[in-house]
Amino acid sequence: NAQLNPTTSNPPTPATDHRTLAQTHELFITSPYSPGSPLLLPNGAYVFQKLQSFLRAQYPQFGFQEVITPTIYKKSLWEKSGHWDNYAEDMFSVQGRGATGETENAEAGQNEEFGLKPMNCPGHCLLFKDEVKSYRDLPIRYADFSALHRNEISGALTGLTRVRRFHQDDAHIFCRPDQILSEIEQTLMFVGMVYDTFGLGPYKLLLSTRPKDQFIGTVEDWDKAEQQLTTALNNSKREWAINEGDGAFYGPKIDIILKDSNGKEHQTATIQLDFQLPQRFDLQYQASPEELASPTEQQKDAGLDAANRRPVIVHRAIYGSLERFMALLIEHYAGKYPFWISPRPAIILALNQDPATLAHVAYLQSVLSGLKTTANSPEFTSLKQSSPPRIDPQPLNAIHLPIAVDTSARPLGRKIADAQKKKFNHIIVIGPSEVKNGGVGLRVANQPNDSVTRQVLQNVMGRDLTDEDLN
Amino acid sequence: NAQLNPTTSNPPTPATDHRTLAQTHELFITSPYSPGSPLLLPNGAYVFQKLQSFLRAQYPQFGFQEVITPTIYKKSLWEKSGHWDNYAEDMFSVQGRGATGETENAEAGQNEEFGLKPMNCPGHCLLFKDEVKSYRDLPIRYADFSALHRNEISGALTGLTRVRRFHQDDAHIFCRPDQILSEIEQTLMFVGMVYDTFGLGPYKLLLSTRPKDQFIGTVEDWDKAEQQLTTALNNSKREWAINEGDGAFYGPKIDIILKDSNGKEHQTATIQLDFQLPQRFDLQYQASPEELASPTEQQKDAGLDAANRRPVIVHRAIYGSLERFMALLIEHYAGKYPFWISPRPAIILALNQDPATLAHVAYLQSVLSGLKTTANSPEFTSLKQSSPPRIDPQPLNAIHLPIAVDTSARPLGRKIADAQKKKFNHIIVIGPSEVKNGGVGLRVANQPNDSVTRQVLQNVMGRDLTDEDLN
Ligand SMILES: [Zn+2]
Ligand SMILES: [Zn+2]
Repeated sequence: NAQLNPTTSNPPTPATDHRTLAQTHELFITSPYSPGSPLLLPNGAYVFQKLQSFLRAQYPQFGFQEVITPTIYKKSLWEKSGHWDNYAEDMFSVQGRGATGETENAEAGQNEEFGLKPMNCPGHCLLFKDEVKSYRDLPIRYADFSALHRNEISGALTGLTRVRRFHQDDAHIFCRPDQILSEIEQTLMFVGMVYDTFGLGPYKLLLSTRPKDQFIGTVEDWDKAEQQLTTALNNSKREWAINEGDGAFYGPKIDIILKDSNGKEHQTATIQLDFQLPQRFDLQYQASPEELASPTEQQKDAGLDAANRRPVIVHRAIYGSLERFMALLIEHYAGKYPFWISPRPAIILALNQDPATLAHVAYLQSVLSGLKTTANSPEFTSLKQSSPPRIDPQPLNAIHLPIAVDTSARPLGRKIADAQKKKFNHIIVIGPSEVKNGGVGLRVANQPNDSVTRQVLQNVMGRDLTDEDLN
Repeated sequence: NAQLNPTTSNPPTPATDHRTLAQTHELFITSPYSPGSPLLLPNGAYVFQKLQSFLRAQYPQFGFQEVITPTIYKKSLWEKSGHWDNYAEDMFSVQGRGATGETENAEAGQNEEFGLKPMNCPGHCLLFKDEVKSYRDLPIRYADFSALHRNEISGALTGLTRVRRFHQDDAHIFCRPDQILSEIEQTLMFVGMVYDTFGLGPYKLLLSTRPKDQFIGTVEDWDKAEQQLTTALNNSKREWAINEGDGAFYGPKIDIILKDSNGKEHQTATIQLDFQLPQRFDLQYQASPEELASPTEQQKDAGLDAANRRPVIVHRAIYGSLERFMALLIEHYAGKYPFWISPRPAIILALNQDPATLAHVAYLQSVLSGLKTTANSPEFTSLKQSSPPRIDPQPLNAIHLPIAVDTSARPLGRKIADAQKKKFNHIIVIGPSEVKNGGVGLRVANQPNDSVTRQVLQNVMGRDLTDEDLN
């Protein structure tokens, strides 16, 4: 599929701050009314959604199921998860203003304080816990793109990289201890596929293991888990290193450290094992016959039924924060986005104001953008019929490219200069000769991989591009 | 496109509450940790996202651009918009907990209280105001699927219909006063397309006009706007009525009243004109030559530049609350979802445990679900190569159907009973004869429009279904 081709292996050297480039492409603004919560303009939302849809398209083959979970939870949930004590500095608190929610039959604690969620994990634990799970049901993989809030101090806020409100490609895998190996292998393969697609890399993998003194769970559990992580890392055939004793007290983790074309390192994806949350939320599953036959120290875990085991939770994100990943891509591509993710893939300039020229521009825009009929076409606004005027729905899998036009009366030179300033991937000029031969007049390209684009143009036009199309 | 075909014109008669049916399909749960914020299970999130993607696929042809806006804004924004005074009862307030956000160079009011947004309009006004707009730039149409919060009293909370947290297919059209007609015409056509697609209706349109005493703006503005709304309603060829004097003080509106198959009326979509927010946010655009040539009373508007005019804002939602619309569809379809939106389109039952049977089940599942390779296929987990193991990305426009399998050793009767209880649209049984002839063994259908499904099955299998496929 041409639309997902990776970019060239020689990405342009970034030099400019993502905020400057983002301004050129009109991706986002900030507002003093909500510091640290960037407002994504249509172009920014377009890129954001391409990132999101790309990952969504991959989820089924990796067995992830998306869920939609609340933005606020009562203080009592954050106390249970440990966030209220350990994340105080990072959380926003929420109260009802007018109506208190008090009713005659109110349950205890009903009107208590809420916390604005900084993470999705506790909500996913509630979903897991809803029904009895058997060893056969695992792994269960919940993905969630919810908005998250962390109360960063205002002095630290910067563009898309240091924010208070962001979205993660968050997911939690609830698995049996013996499933860690295959889950981590698949996650590492997923990471590789995503970074290859965006032409990012090389990256290295960093394993952090059991801390010396403070840790929860048994040494046996840790050893088995670390053994599986090591095997998965070896099988990944990627460069990896170990950070002995640097894991969190609740589980070992793998960090993905990406080197950008300036040699700067970014910690993006994380794969964090967690032995603690399953305990705090008392998550259990009915053990398999094999598990029942080989008792482990886990059984000493208070509150665990004899025939049950605790799942392990794997917190994992591949982009990490989508906002931060966007900033990274902006600098990585230095304004030359691959066609499929570009907020400005092409603009069509009319050489003159002739009706024939304008008609060809409109035709080309609708063909290139992938729309067959548009709300503004004559058939759409025809009001002569006696039944309600209708328009056919676009299919769910329609891909729409935001093709711009400039039909103003300004001189061509001005239009081209303007289009270049706005960093359109392609500038297409339509004049009398293009009208005559039905061509596209491809003028200027600002595109990392030109052959991919030509392929897309050809697919979309249903014919090969000729010399006449390319000025 | 077969996937978007409307259902039959005779929808099944709903009898059951959406909460009961939702339980059958495992769509959502509620939690005392976040009353009124339903947690959508994978099946519920699947339906939610089909609704969302369907609308997203339509947005380009209607000229809507999606934006992504903050969840919290400072009190000062809500004071400006009027929500802080008028919506006190409905809003949640937000404060930082630990870090106060105080810095040496903090701007005035930096650490003030925030409000959790009950609506998207003020954020969209900030986006509109960011750059100078000319009459040529209008209409600008921002769409937004953000989560919204309203502090309903807890006694009133019910399933998906009375909630505290919900998502709207919200949009704001910023247009010139003379563009109202065409915007309303297009919006009414959009509403018709959506309701036809889901087989909903009939519905009637209700115009609420200028209140007698209290209203903002000039009588001239109101008359012109109402004239355009009336023309649009006439052109829609739909049943409509007038509610004289029943408009809000800030603008006339059109409500869409849907009659369900029980005769119960639901107010779903709304089209609300707004003369007030453009004033409160001092939104302006550079007037056209025609507008400058015909001065109106609008010019008396304090703070408006002589060469500028105020846009009108149209608040519009077609589904309204997605959660509420889901509840409505759940009852409307009474568990028999159209194939393209069904969380349980099909299940494949293995008649026995033969390797050949299981292989055919796995093959059929991957073909029907639209996946070519899966993460669990042998090629995926093969680790013999020395380069990193790879898997190809799925294209962005891939449509994945959640096809379930039951390969347990239970008797077929039990599996079928279980599948029927779970209300799968189709039950496919695979035994020796299907393995031999490569068939699908379609057994039982729970589907409002069978021919559509057969078409989809045929498209997906790349061949016609034969008699042998249909038991
Ligand atoms: Zn987590
Ligand atoms: Zn609004």
